[in-house]
Amino acid sequence: MVDELTWSDTRALDLFGIALPILQAPMAGAGGASLAAAVAEGGGLGAIACAALARDEAEAEVAAFRARTRAPLNLNFFCHAPPPIDPQRWQAWLARLAPYYAEQHVAAPQALPAATRQPFDAAACAFVEAARPQVVSFHFGLPPADLLARVRAAGAIVIGSATTVREARWLAAHGVDAVIAQGAEAGGHRGMFLTDDVTTQVGLFALLPQVADAVDVPVIAAGGIADGRGIAAAFALGASAVQIGTAYLFCPEATVPAAHRAALRGGRDGDADTALTNLFSGRPARGIVNRLMREQGPVDPAAPPFPLAGAALAPLRPHDASGDFGSLWSGQARALAVELPAATLTRRLAEQGAAQLSRLGLRRST
Amino acid sequence: MVDELTWSDTRALDLFGIALPILQAPMAGAGGASLAAAVAEGGGLGAIACAALARDEAEAEVAAFRARTRAPLNLNFFCHAPPPIDPQRWQAWLARLAPYYAEQHVAAPQALPAATRQPFDAAACAFVEAARPQVVSFHFGLPPADLLARVRAAGAIVIGSATTVREARWLAAHGVDAVIAQGAEAGGHRGMFLTDDVTTQVGLFALLPQVADAVDVPVIAAGGIADGRGIAAAFALGASAVQIGTAYLFCPEATVPAAHRAALRGGRDGDADTALTNLFSGRPARGIVNRLMREQGPVDPAAPPFPLAGAALAPLRPHDASGDFGSLWSGQARALAVELPAATLTRRLAEQGAAQLSRLGLRRST
Repeated sequence: MVDELTWSDTRALDLFGIALPILQAPMAGAGGASLAAAVAEGGGLGAIACAALARDEAEAEVAAFRARTRAPLNLNFFCHAPPPIDPQRWQAWLARLAPYYAEQHVAAPQALPAATRQPFDAAACAFVEAARPQVVSFHFGLPPADLLARVRAAGAIVIGSATTVREARWLAAHGVDAVIAQGAEAGGHRGMFLTDDVTTQVGLFALLPQVADAVDVPVIAAGGIADGRGIAAAFALGASAVQIGTAYLFCPEATVPAAHRAALRGGRDGDADTALTNLFSGRPARGIVNRLMREQGPVDPAAPPFPLAGAALAPLRPHDASGDFGSLWSGQARALAVELPAATLTRRLAEQGAAQLSRLGLRRST
Repeated sequence: MVDELTWSDTRALDLFGIALPILQAPMAGAGGASLAAAVAEGGGLGAIACAALARDEAEAEVAAFRARTRAPLNLNFFCHAPPPIDPQRWQAWLARLAPYYAEQHVAAPQALPAATRQPFDAAACAFVEAARPQVVSFHFGLPPADLLARVRAAGAIVIGSATTVREARWLAAHGVDAVIAQGAEAGGHRGMFLTDDVTTQVGLFALLPQVADAVDVPVIAAGGIADGRGIAAAFALGASAVQIGTAYLFCPEATVPAAHRAALRGGRDGDADTALTNLFSGRPARGIVNRLMREQGPVDPAAPPFPLAGAALAPLRPHDASGDFGSLWSGQARALAVELPAATLTRRLAEQGAAQLSRLGLRRST
């Protein structure tokens, strides 16, 4: 049986008002209301990534979630600074990609790129004030103080992602209610905002206890957690909850393109075939190594800044059944994942975590 | 109290005949018999790194260890293929470093480099047969089958390091008695031998459970473990023991140069100021980012192959009080370390680990 007595730290359960200490990672494009509601029905905290949604799309997702459950909801936003458009840099990057356009018989983008991901701004804040989610999470730092104050005034618990101890301290100093410690194992975008150096990014084993020591708020462990052992280990290192992304990509509720799903399922070396790359969006994110990453090198300072890099690859994507040119986000533990409906998976993860915790303490208590 | 009942998995304790599931990482140049014997007296498995020692030096270290304790001893060796010397590549690399030689008023190396690290060969094998250590550990794979058979015939338990599931399977297939799962957090040289791609190296959180699933032998967790929470988490993820390096560098028994010790103690961002680099030896290893790594970039394919790169920096080292040009090996969790004698530290780590395991399982059993 899994209940509050299972967990050595119940601060996250109490903060979010959830039964199980599992947060579904918001994953732009890979899961909407259907995935979030299923996680919530399983007892975890469901999340909807709003950065890539127009307001009416986001409203529809929230409505769909609420039509299914009264559970708390986490709405996620990005806090990047929109980059200036540098036509020279853009053209130089298109020239780099020219052989691919030629090979695939597609035209290079003709217009300068438009941002496909908007940072949290006054309009997004007005949406939050109307939607009144129980939780708002931010990636790439936090929004300006006035907007953050409005989010709080709307009654939302605020959480943010840290990839270093310094970022965790910064988030705590700016008043977040909980910090996500995002280990380097995590799939998708690194939340990094006080550094852009991927070479010094930190594994969860080292990051989590140092973040737990550095901040007073509850810490949520993310990165490389895909089964009950990872949940138990996260609690051992000082977490109050875990955030799981990649394992949920295997659920039927996930909206993962076919090439991405095939890559997630394939590969005999599921632990060692991902890398951090900035080629797909302009910011470092972990994905399965594909042709573009292999041929160009996964990290290139010449790539257009976030989120503009994506527009340079857009012409290649409709023809990309093999996943050569698209982001195949994945963490480093995807080989541990099982294909189950999200509610079942959520319950199963918690049960496995509880069993592992019980097993670890068992011998001494007998 | 810490005894066999503390640990959910006692296979490593039984295999090595030690009281506590803690292996001291062999660290060439940073610890000899004094550190190893203190760890052994504390109840862990002490190790002596032999790769950089002449035979008489190694014999003296073993004798010094045995004069203090009858505990098991782990002798560690490297298994790299000695590289051919490419004079053109060597000269090109010296040209890269020329500004540093000029600035420091030292001459570039005049002769072609000699290897400062020898792989495990017939002479090393004869030494093992004479010394008869209880444990022999290998880094960078395993020695040829005939030498490995002789090591086994000499009565040694054999262990090897894996940085991927594939390497773990390879080691198990070649008959090791235990596998070290070396997470990307670890300080010093990566044990990688079936890949040379640092971008796909795996954090311990993801690596450890996948290795535990892949092999039947006990798994020893390494990388980012510096306190009891890390030990508890390692057991949660499937380890039978842990291997700890960086935390032992803070012991008075460690033979760490002053600049290295100062760097270990310093730095407000102890989690996020290390990177994998091949500049100092020619193979990827994790160290604190210093001037050379910053200015040249931490990984450069042009660096001479292991171990020759070290010889190019040798002229700079005697003048290097600030640690600008020397390897400052460190894992990502050094900020968790405390300065204690090694025997005391070993006992304290085990006690903290046991307490954490007990705390994790406690609530359910009450």
